[in-house]
Amino acid sequence: MVTAAAYAVTSAEGAFEKTTIERRELGPLDILIEIKFAGICHSDIHTARNEWGGTHYPVVPGHEIAGVVTAVGSEVTRHHVGDRVGVGCFVDSCGECDACRAGEEQYCANRVTGTYNARGRDGEWTQGGYSTHIVVTERFVVSIPDGLELDVAAPLLCAGITLYSPLAHWGAGPGKKVAVIGMGGLGHVGVKIAHAMGAEVTVLSQSLGKKEDGLKFGADHYYATSDPETFRSLRSRFDLIVNTVSVNLDIDAYLSMLAINGTLVELGLPEKPIEVRAFSLAANRRSLAGSMVGGVAQTQEMLDFCAEHGIGAAIEVIPASDIDTAYDRVVASDVRYRFVIDAATI
Amino acid sequence: MVTAAAYAVTSAEGAFEKTTIERRELGPLDILIEIKFAGICHSDIHTARNEWGGTHYPVVPGHEIAGVVTAVGSEVTRHHVGDRVGVGCFVDSCGECDACRAGEEQYCANRVTGTYNARGRDGEWTQGGYSTHIVVTERFVVSIPDGLELDVAAPLLCAGITLYSPLAHWGAGPGKKVAVIGMGGLGHVGVKIAHAMGAEVTVLSQSLGKKEDGLKFGADHYYATSDPETFRSLRSRFDLIVNTVSVNLDIDAYLSMLAINGTLVELGLPEKPIEVRAFSLAANRRSLAGSMVGGVAQTQEMLDFCAEHGIGAAIEVIPASDIDTAYDRVVASDVRYRFVIDAATI
Repeated sequence: MVTAAAYAVTSAEGAFEKTTIERRELGPLDILIEIKFAGICHSDIHTARNEWGGTHYPVVPGHEIAGVVTAVGSEVTRHHVGDRVGVGCFVDSCGECDACRAGEEQYCANRVTGTYNARGRDGEWTQGGYSTHIVVTERFVVSIPDGLELDVAAPLLCAGITLYSPLAHWGAGPGKKVAVIGMGGLGHVGVKIAHAMGAEVTVLSQSLGKKEDGLKFGADHYYATSDPETFRSLRSRFDLIVNTVSVNLDIDAYLSMLAINGTLVELGLPEKPIEVRAFSLAANRRSLAGSMVGGVAQTQEMLDFCAEHGIGAAIEVIPASDIDTAYDRVVASDVRYRFVIDAATI
Repeated sequence: MVTAAAYAVTSAEGAFEKTTIERRELGPLDILIEIKFAGICHSDIHTARNEWGGTHYPVVPGHEIAGVVTAVGSEVTRHHVGDRVGVGCFVDSCGECDACRAGEEQYCANRVTGTYNARGRDGEWTQGGYSTHIVVTERFVVSIPDGLELDVAAPLLCAGITLYSPLAHWGAGPGKKVAVIGMGGLGHVGVKIAHAMGAEVTVLSQSLGKKEDGLKFGADHYYATSDPETFRSLRSRFDLIVNTVSVNLDIDAYLSMLAINGTLVELGLPEKPIEVRAFSLAANRRSLAGSMVGGVAQTQEMLDFCAEHGIGAAIEVIPASDIDTAYDRVVASDVRYRFVIDAATI
């Protein structure tokens, strides 16, 4: 067993506290990673505060993990000691269903194992990346390419792939008009990636407060959705809209901005059901779709793509002692654009 | 001007009455059609009874029109006197927007002109197929191939293309598992077409009452949605589900039957907004889509396909004097599977 330092919460109302956790003994296919940075995702907050229900305490969140390999199991071939690696939202899957065989482990028919707050196939509860070390089977460990710093790479393991996957799946690229709803942790990475893919990128944000940043990240246009004129002037405009906002929006209004055969992809998971008029879909043969992060192979593809295009998350690095404050600031949308915990402070 | 006999209603509560209407003088691109049969579509009922609002009275419904050309304008090239032809849901469009140029006139950016209850580009209100004659510009007149009887062809002009278009667009064919929700006027044609395209076809109907018919039409499987076991056993099964039911269903339950990358297409237009949980879409990267009939070129393609595969609607032919009774029976789902008015009785 490996004893690791970690930050955990013990109840929905509790503050983060430093603790130690045991990581499993290295199996033949396992990799021990010394964590260098762990991003803070809004899902971490939902789980720590039990806002989705089902949180098993104590919980160590964190599924945007970047670090260095310090030991490998006897049969590991994919990574070596000293390699710079990452771990995202999942650490195991059945490996045998159609989804797993297609490299879409996130849709595993037999339950993909979350990086934290999930019961692993060994019956133990998984604990995430707000920690000094983690043990992960090699199949779920990706390489962080040279030229991509570990701190700005960490958020790509969830935010990056969550945007890259639908943008790739729905064909963002030259000649395509793509809109990104929301300029937060997910949205700002989506702007960078969609721009690098060659699409014409529009940001749809509540206000113009982050317009300068959006244009810097690669957006071609930036509109405030608080202005009704935005919806009128962009009618039937976009081939693809990715919605990174997790509160319920007037989806009919956003659908009206889709061109023929356009798709709006929901990436946030709003609390209440989405309400949509059938006519909003029938007009222009529109689709409302969902997407859940991406598979391991595509996560590697995304990291390689980001390294090639010089894309990292825009981050604010914090010590582990500031996690509670950072959570409050994420909820208040007071971060540009992703908090990353420096694991050396754990 | 051509004076035509017709059946019209003069108010939302009124019964159909025989009347005469004037069809416009034949312009150079116009075709005069002697109507032989006109199908009764649920949209006719919604319009006649002003259930969608906006009905302009008196109104002659009918957009499933099959007949014979009796005169053509001086510049008409596509059809000749004596040709067997059909007219569907639209009789004009701008012809210049992207949608029209792509042959998707139903999505015309400048308002497609409905076959009835629409104000045409000449400012006159259009009147539909419950009539002895109609004048339509040649661009919106399709050929009914030999081997397809006019009476069973009539419902294909709306019901047929409404199903054919999404089945073709979303790739129904060999190796694809397709489900059809509802075994009514739309659904039964969908079963026939999806089967002819080579897909494995499942009917999802409230009861097993029409199972024998469904299997005869080409379904491979038939399930009752009143049985909760249906949803459990078909979890993640289908590549494509077409929903022909126009009342609000538990869409999350139906979405759960979609495999990875599966799409559920809404063809009915339920009164209330559809409620869908974001997670139902994110799981398996599912899509909820809409589709509105099909373009003129695809309508011709559909008719050729149906003729080739011996597909016609299953119909009950009625005299025009029975329209009111037929309406009540459609609303009560008491028709197998489409009423067609014999225009000789008008």
